[in-house]
Amino acid sequence: MTEHRTPRRRGRPRGGSDSRARIIGAAVDDFGEKGYDGATVRSIAARAGVDSALVHHYFGTKADLFAEAVGIPLRPDVDVPRIVAGPRAEVGERLIRYVLESFEQPEIQRRGVMLMRTAIGSRLTTPLLAGFLSRELVGRIAAALGVPDAELRATLVASQVAGLLLTRYVLKLSPIATASIDDLVARVGPTLQRYLFA
Amino acid sequence: MTEHRTPRRRGRPRGGSDSRARIIGAAVDDFGEKGYDGATVRSIAARAGVDSALVHHYFGTKADLFAEAVGIPLRPDVDVPRIVAGPRAEVGERLIRYVLESFEQPEIQRRGVMLMRTAIGSRLTTPLLAGFLSRELVGRIAAALGVPDAELRATLVASQVAGLLLTRYVLKLSPIATASIDDLVARVGPTLQRYLFA
Repeated sequence: MTEHRTPRRRGRPRGGSDSRARIIGAAVDDFGEKGYDGATVRSIAARAGVDSALVHHYFGTKADLFAEAVGIPLRPDVDVPRIVAGPRAEVGERLIRYVLESFEQPEIQRRGVMLMRTAIGSRLTTPLLAGFLSRELVGRIAAALGVPDAELRATLVASQVAGLLLTRYVLKLSPIATASIDDLVARVGPTLQRYLFA
Repeated sequence: MTEHRTPRRRGRPRGGSDSRARIIGAAVDDFGEKGYDGATVRSIAARAGVDSALVHHYFGTKADLFAEAVGIPLRPDVDVPRIVAGPRAEVGERLIRYVLESFEQPEIQRRGVMLMRTAIGSRLTTPLLAGFLSRELVGRIAAALGVPDAELRATLVASQVAGLLLTRYVLKLSPIATASIDDLVARVGPTLQRYLFA
């Protein structure tokens, strides 16, 4: 959420890497102020002084821009639908393995922990994480399930995933912090499977 | 974690409610600085300028003093062993019902959310929550189970409990935030049961 910006050049931006950096800076500010739901590609473009079309051209969707702004090379909006669409019997295990293997990458872990600390620690930035999880994780899982209580099932999955990341990577509770990925997948996978399909 | 202290009277403390308030103030500072494991009844007594025996006399154990210092009338160190010792088939459901019914009380919820935000938001205060959970929740559940991997089982329970509190009361993810206690107990109880005994 912190962003070290290069000093602005004088005069109007001439596009290219300058516009790109201005859009990222505007996205960080706009997501931080309004949360994930409140910020829009249009409001970010206006803040950066560029056209919305240029934002779409450089970054694609709002989810793309968010991943870029928080600096986490993790795309649940792309990966989760693929995981949920695979063989049904192992969706729970595939989902938790995806999350844990992602977080074992030092750069994702470092930024993910920072995002959790920031979003939970401050009332102002909580909607940022909550909105992102709702739209890009919970919403997409629920849509793939297509049952009446799909939203509750998906938020229960989010609760276990968030709790596991919190206890393993932030609180570092022993021995969950040092357990192997395979052990955790075997124990937590069936939980997610039951929340989704039981 | 915030503490509004009454102005100190001039001169040396004369015991009674004055010493009590000084001990609470010292506990807040000492837990905040050193975390749950680092702070001791002895170090808190020294900081308050009283004898350790007086701290034990007023507050009992370190767990009692912590509950008093964070202002949460919640005593997992007392309640959890009782819950785990009851009929084995419904331990999971009793445990999550206890947590949720506690958090539905406005005063517990307000202070519990504040404790989570503070402890997760700052690297300095994270050991406070982590240490308390380890010693008073995880440690006591594990001791009651008495199996080789009891500690991992108990931390998995902590991960789901923490994740549920986080998504329902801090992130307020819909619809987990508005689901009934009975519905959540029915869905999450079997998870805790499986983590503990499967």
